[in-house]
Amino acid sequence: MAIALNQLGALDAARRLNRRELTAVQMVRACLARIEQREPQVQAWATLDPAHALAQAEALDNGPVRGVLHGLPLGIKDIFDTHDLPTRYGSSVYSQHQPVADAAAVALCREAGGLVLGKTVTTELAAYQPGPTRNPRNVAYTPGGSSSGSAAAVADEMCPLALGTQTAGSIIRPAAYCGVVGFKPTAGRIARGGLKSTAESLDTIGGFARSIDDIGLLASVLMRDARLRQLDYDGTPRIGMLRTFQWRLAQTESRDAFEQAALLLARAGADVQEAALPAEDCALVQLHADVMAYEAASALTYERTQARKQLSTRLVAMLDAGAEIDTAAHQERLARAARARERALRWFDQFDVLLMPSTTGEAPFFEQGTGDPLFCRVWTLFGFPAVHLPFTTGPQGLPVGLQAVGAPGQDQRLLAVGRWMHRVLQEG
Amino acid sequence: MAIALNQLGALDAARRLNRRELTAVQMVRACLARIEQREPQVQAWATLDPAHALAQAEALDNGPVRGVLHGLPLGIKDIFDTHDLPTRYGSSVYSQHQPVADAAAVALCREAGGLVLGKTVTTELAAYQPGPTRNPRNVAYTPGGSSSGSAAAVADEMCPLALGTQTAGSIIRPAAYCGVVGFKPTAGRIARGGLKSTAESLDTIGGFARSIDDIGLLASVLMRDARLRQLDYDGTPRIGMLRTFQWRLAQTESRDAFEQAALLLARAGADVQEAALPAEDCALVQLHADVMAYEAASALTYERTQARKQLSTRLVAMLDAGAEIDTAAHQERLARAARARERALRWFDQFDVLLMPSTTGEAPFFEQGTGDPLFCRVWTLFGFPAVHLPFTTGPQGLPVGLQAVGAPGQDQRLLAVGRWMHRVLQEG
Repeated sequence: MAIALNQLGALDAARRLNRRELTAVQMVRACLARIEQREPQVQAWATLDPAHALAQAEALDNGPVRGVLHGLPLGIKDIFDTHDLPTRYGSSVYSQHQPVADAAAVALCREAGGLVLGKTVTTELAAYQPGPTRNPRNVAYTPGGSSSGSAAAVADEMCPLALGTQTAGSIIRPAAYCGVVGFKPTAGRIARGGLKSTAESLDTIGGFARSIDDIGLLASVLMRDARLRQLDYDGTPRIGMLRTFQWRLAQTESRDAFEQAALLLARAGADVQEAALPAEDCALVQLHADVMAYEAASALTYERTQARKQLSTRLVAMLDAGAEIDTAAHQERLARAARARERALRWFDQFDVLLMPSTTGEAPFFEQGTGDPLFCRVWTLFGFPAVHLPFTTGPQGLPVGLQAVGAPGQDQRLLAVGRWMHRVLQEG
Repeated sequence: MAIALNQLGALDAARRLNRRELTAVQMVRACLARIEQREPQVQAWATLDPAHALAQAEALDNGPVRGVLHGLPLGIKDIFDTHDLPTRYGSSVYSQHQPVADAAAVALCREAGGLVLGKTVTTELAAYQPGPTRNPRNVAYTPGGSSSGSAAAVADEMCPLALGTQTAGSIIRPAAYCGVVGFKPTAGRIARGGLKSTAESLDTIGGFARSIDDIGLLASVLMRDARLRQLDYDGTPRIGMLRTFQWRLAQTESRDAFEQAALLLARAGADVQEAALPAEDCALVQLHADVMAYEAASALTYERTQARKQLSTRLVAMLDAGAEIDTAAHQERLARAARARERALRWFDQFDVLLMPSTTGEAPFFEQGTGDPLFCRVWTLFGFPAVHLPFTTGPQGLPVGLQAVGAPGQDQRLLAVGRWMHRVLQEG
């Protein structure tokens, strides 16, 4: 049975578009049809301009093949500036914001032939206050945040690829809740110009796809690195199973997924070992939260001081708390994080990747907020690359998977080993 | 003889404003009068709205004292977003750009009671293509760049403080050419939200003033650190005199200033030694230029790919060259820079500060461009704090001074020792 065009993976669609066996207009039409059908329930999109998306597609169809993303419709988290669509950062403060230029990441995608299908819902200023988006697997549940719309749109086959950002757990968590691949590269690898800043030492650009090969395609453009399109792996992956200090907070489904994955990966030939945690690192989750609060209070000074009535109570509370943090204490925290990061680097002498839960469990109910970034905070603080691997389902039938973390700068190896692991987990 | 209000230093004016012995309206009027008189020659301002500046001043005079910058008129480099004034980044691409919000640095200044007098001229996108600004000491010469207008405005007593940024030598160089204090703090210490990105691992926010105490006042707000207002120093400064690998490119006036400073500082009681350079670091100046080109090609992808006809030939050439740089080569350069930075840290076991030329010499003629950032590139690459100390004049009667560089994170010590050194140099 032929699958609908909107169901095509990015790499598959890109190959057909590149050979002109498929037009960008066909691809956009299929995505728009899916959105028309599902958007009333899912609410993944902050701004959608079908006529403009089709016009971009026509221009691409009528011109030369521009690059590896030629004709692919992209969902862009509404925290990235776009010159041709309003950009509201999930806040009424920016209800009238029409950027002059594209964010660097968006422009890199367009340079490679990608087209902006629309802007996806972000939580308020990429922090914790949810937008309207529902989990497409079951709309009673949250899709996670802050990249809510990007994860939901890719999961619901509204588009093959989407951009997101992570400051705490804003890529890995929604990827896990929606059951798609989410990738947060090594910090500093993707230019952040034109991205609304939330917490500068933490904000990291990444994306969503439905396979590791697809996310490699997107990452190769954003990171200007063709090696990310070569993810063959024929070694014996050394996998460190890391329970973390938050293990007791993992629900049954996350623990079961972890144990089952260890068995499957070992059976498939991986070298699977328990990774031990240095006791001095037990406070890193709180340390991340404190660093984020301090930096957000600076980055969002305008909003905190001149537009506070337009912010959620929750965000004001975080920013006010962050503004009270003493700079000497903040510097001491950054120094502690740097020392812990140095210790963590030693893991990668022994392991290619660390594997651990992505989330405490399945997605919470929509009304309970976007979930806890607990298992992601430390890796964002360290700037290590992380990828979410969809795996199984939990008691509510919602997705549950695992997070693989790699050594900084070893993004290609993380995705290559991640691809190997993902295949093993999918084959079960 | 009473000095005019526009000639008051920031700290002095702030004290009077704080005690309500001086009103913000008086201060703004004095600055505007100076601008009216001198702007036709100097051309420091990209946007000036006198009525709006006076309205801000009136509001401050009619409200409570808001903070340590209360009522001080600030020049803001036109590379920082301002919610109430257009922000053009020195490029016609942004001729219609009116930001919704203030950049974080601007909002921090306003929170402390500072008022935005106007936007100062930047070179094109903070790169090398000059704006119209002239050196206020002699308008036949360049003020330096990219923070051309901020340095010129402070030097010409149009405002007591101004914000700038440095990606190569864009604070230290114009400070040297115009004969004012310029300060580039440790990288990462001032939030960059709302700042147009040129090269992400290099862009550093700082500022200009006419004394070290004044720049400490501004830095204390931007860095959220009251310690920067306490710059008393009663130790014996250990000063490493660093000729650098570019010594042969220093002109006579820069060499003379260097030698004379060493004598004066030793005579005043400092422990003055020659600092030796590791031979493997001779290529760092070029390495910085390559890192900047690669990162600028990413950060300015929109401009490079969708607005190139509006860019200068020189900028297009840099961006196109940067876009050709292989990412693996770039990563290797960053790794080399990190190793060189580790070696450089050892200097600070022996010295409190390193002292060296800020520029090759006096300002070049206006027609020759904004000068060479040669002596600044390495410290921007390393993210070490640097401050320009005005000292003497050269053969054309233009300012010549020296650059003091401190250990990363030791901004307070750099300014405290810098203040001690500046007094010695001024007393001669």
